[in-house]
Amino acid sequence: MYEGAVQTLIDELGSLPGIGPKSAQRIAFHVLSAEKEDVLRLSRALEEVKDKVRFCDICGNIAESEHCYICEDARRDATIICVVEEAKDVEVIERTGSYRGLYHVLGGAIDPMRGVGPDQLRIRQLLARLGANGVKEVIIATDPNIEGEATATYLARMLDTMQVPASRLALGLPVGGDLEYADEVTLGRAFEGRRLID
Amino acid sequence: MYEGAVQTLIDELGSLPGIGPKSAQRIAFHVLSAEKEDVLRLSRALEEVKDKVRFCDICGNIAESEHCYICEDARRDATIICVVEEAKDVEVIERTGSYRGLYHVLGGAIDPMRGVGPDQLRIRQLLARLGANGVKEVIIATDPNIEGEATATYLARMLDTMQVPASRLALGLPVGGDLEYADEVTLGRAFEGRRLID
Repeated sequence: MYEGAVQTLIDELGSLPGIGPKSAQRIAFHVLSAEKEDVLRLSRALEEVKDKVRFCDICGNIAESEHCYICEDARRDATIICVVEEAKDVEVIERTGSYRGLYHVLGGAIDPMRGVGPDQLRIRQLLARLGANGVKEVIIATDPNIEGEATATYLARMLDTMQVPASRLALGLPVGGDLEYADEVTLGRAFEGRRLID
Repeated sequence: MYEGAVQTLIDELGSLPGIGPKSAQRIAFHVLSAEKEDVLRLSRALEEVKDKVRFCDICGNIAESEHCYICEDARRDATIICVVEEAKDVEVIERTGSYRGLYHVLGGAIDPMRGVGPDQLRIRQLLARLGANGVKEVIIATDPNIEGEATATYLARMLDTMQVPASRLALGLPVGGDLEYADEVTLGRAFEGRRLID
């Protein structure tokens, strides 16, 4: 245990995800010897995120005003909605530069073990968006794991009753990967999803 | 890249030791969904450390007033000084509960490759403490690596000219360890330092 303020900082840092007691101590000592101005920049950045950042009223992505920069962008194709679990997934897809439609952030995936059902996700808001606008396709980009697949199956069924075409991202070998190191499930999906070469 | 405040926070977090871009993003998203009050506690803890914490005028340990709680404690044995590299080493030794003397924090170890010589460390202050008080022994507890050993050798020579007895922490097998997993250097030191059983 350290004296007052240092121990308080170690405790606060240790409550962040992925930061154990050793890292918390290391960071606290870094803070101790850092320039005051640098530390103030960090503490202000923490407060600003809480003050300024909210979630987009339309898609649930992070935003600094009512709508996020993607929903605000008139050049985006409003007839396609890509459904993702988390706001960070939006950034991952944006980085590919290959998608020009809009997004819908669910805020998680269906996970009965953790008490997350469809009502805890932003599914109702998604269906409302489909009713109002001329959406031609919903791309379901939930994670390729049990919860993500369950969510995708649930969404596909809902979309089917609403007669909105739904698609799912392709599963297969990662580009630049090595066949030898692919797990059997992925390799199996790569076989199922194989395409004829023209 | 995220919008304004979120990216600023990710950048600031990423400048902390041991926090890469992925962890910084993870923490930023945790902050986004955390209670505002919890985030304010963290940002205040950061600022308080810079406002309140200083280094002890005597030993260089962290302190919230002129002197640290160890130097202030009249029950400590002021005739023994344990020399360590960093303030965190003080806490590690305190946790053993087996040392009742005072400390002296050097602020690092001699490391010519990084431009750290004796003048960059609090060695002058250590020698001043020895001159003034009735110090009977200096325990050199620098790290058991090249820089720590070089520092220990340098200090031992200085203390010898001042005729102050110096000791070095024992090197050997870790308690609870397995002989099989000890590295050769440690095992060699354990042989050199063997003691006769009474």
